[in-house]
Amino acid sequence: MDIISALNWRYATKSMSGEAVPQEKVDEILESIQLTASSAGFQPYQVLVIQNKDLLEKIKPVAFDQPQITKASHLLVFAAWDRVTQERVDAMVKNIAQIRQVPEDSLGAIRSYGDRFMAQTAEQNFQWAARQAYIALGTALITAASLEVDSTPMEGFDSSALDELLGLPAKGLKSVLLLPLGYRDPANDWLLPLKKVRMPKEALFIEDEELAEV
Amino acid sequence: MDIISALNWRYATKSMSGEAVPQEKVDEILESIQLTASSAGFQPYQVLVIQNKDLLEKIKPVAFDQPQITKASHLLVFAAWDRVTQERVDAMVKNIAQIRQVPEDSLGAIRSYGDRFMAQTAEQNFQWAARQAYIALGTALITAASLEVDSTPMEGFDSSALDELLGLPAKGLKSVLLLPLGYRDPANDWLLPLKKVRMPKEALFIEDEELAEV
Repeated sequence: MDIISALNWRYATKSMSGEAVPQEKVDEILESIQLTASSAGFQPYQVLVIQNKDLLEKIKPVAFDQPQITKASHLLVFAAWDRVTQERVDAMVKNIAQIRQVPEDSLGAIRSYGDRFMAQTAEQNFQWAARQAYIALGTALITAASLEVDSTPMEGFDSSALDELLGLPAKGLKSVLLLPLGYRDPANDWLLPLKKVRMPKEALFIEDEELAEV
Repeated sequence: MDIISALNWRYATKSMSGEAVPQEKVDEILESIQLTASSAGFQPYQVLVIQNKDLLEKIKPVAFDQPQITKASHLLVFAAWDRVTQERVDAMVKNIAQIRQVPEDSLGAIRSYGDRFMAQTAEQNFQWAARQAYIALGTALITAASLEVDSTPMEGFDSSALDELLGLPAKGLKSVLLLPLGYRDPANDWLLPLKKVRMPKEALFIEDEELAEV
């Protein structure tokens, strides 16, 4: 499915069927997350891929009992770095050096980025990292839809409680987004028959002419 | 081009040729931004579409003289709402009522979302809005690449200076991201020949088994 069709096809699925998404489709969604852009290439987040039904049952109340959590095939949890650390910068430098077959010493520019981030507060690091996770979410939404896999982006959950449940503080991560993947349950989804609403182009975009006074 | 191929093809283009991107391709990129997901459907940002060469010359120094600003065909400026206002919530409710042909009175749930956002600080509103713009960025990157249009996502610019230059405070907007659209200039782009680097899957994804202690 092309991208515009995929974006029109997708919607924040409110009721899922419980049907399993084939692993190769999940893998393609994950690959698109891995490949997408991030600030200075830092990819400052990790994504948890959860299928375990017992665990999903425990997550559901933390996500305000949204039924998609347990009717999803897989739940992706986007968790941003709580801060930039020397260890994380080192891992990144090592990875670049390996892939590009260059000495680590030649990657001073990346270390400088790292130093600049480490000079910021943990909260600034986290806010920056969280934003990058939203690029990955935007990517995953399109890839899923192009494969006719439904999904529901969720900000509505108790992130601190989820972090505790999943042991994220020990990993230096904070959850920012949930994305259940599964299949729509048309008979029980109130949102499906409603028209997609988007702001008209003239309200969303500002063209040169409207900046004439500049 | 399929999504995985598009993500592999794209890179943060460092040198652009100055060639114009056909308007129909720009329109498709904008349409994908218009169609993408946002928190509770608020689309809490606007996107400036700038082609005026004089204006791009003025923007360049504010963006640390990055050459793509003036060698781009179009510059997209993603600008997040500085806060959620009653006027903005009203416009959204009116739009939903028109598109779905329902009375505005039936849209109390949306107004409740609006009330909740308005009870937060302007800074909280802005941080939330900025994150949504990153979903749109992730979307635009893929659409552009699928059309073989190059782009360079940029966080590195003086957002306050740019806001002043573009008159954004009067519009209740704050710039968060730049996305020049154009075409790569292979002879002069140092990044193009380098291998794309991404963290390996085992570092980016956390599977159920690794959460066994939960």
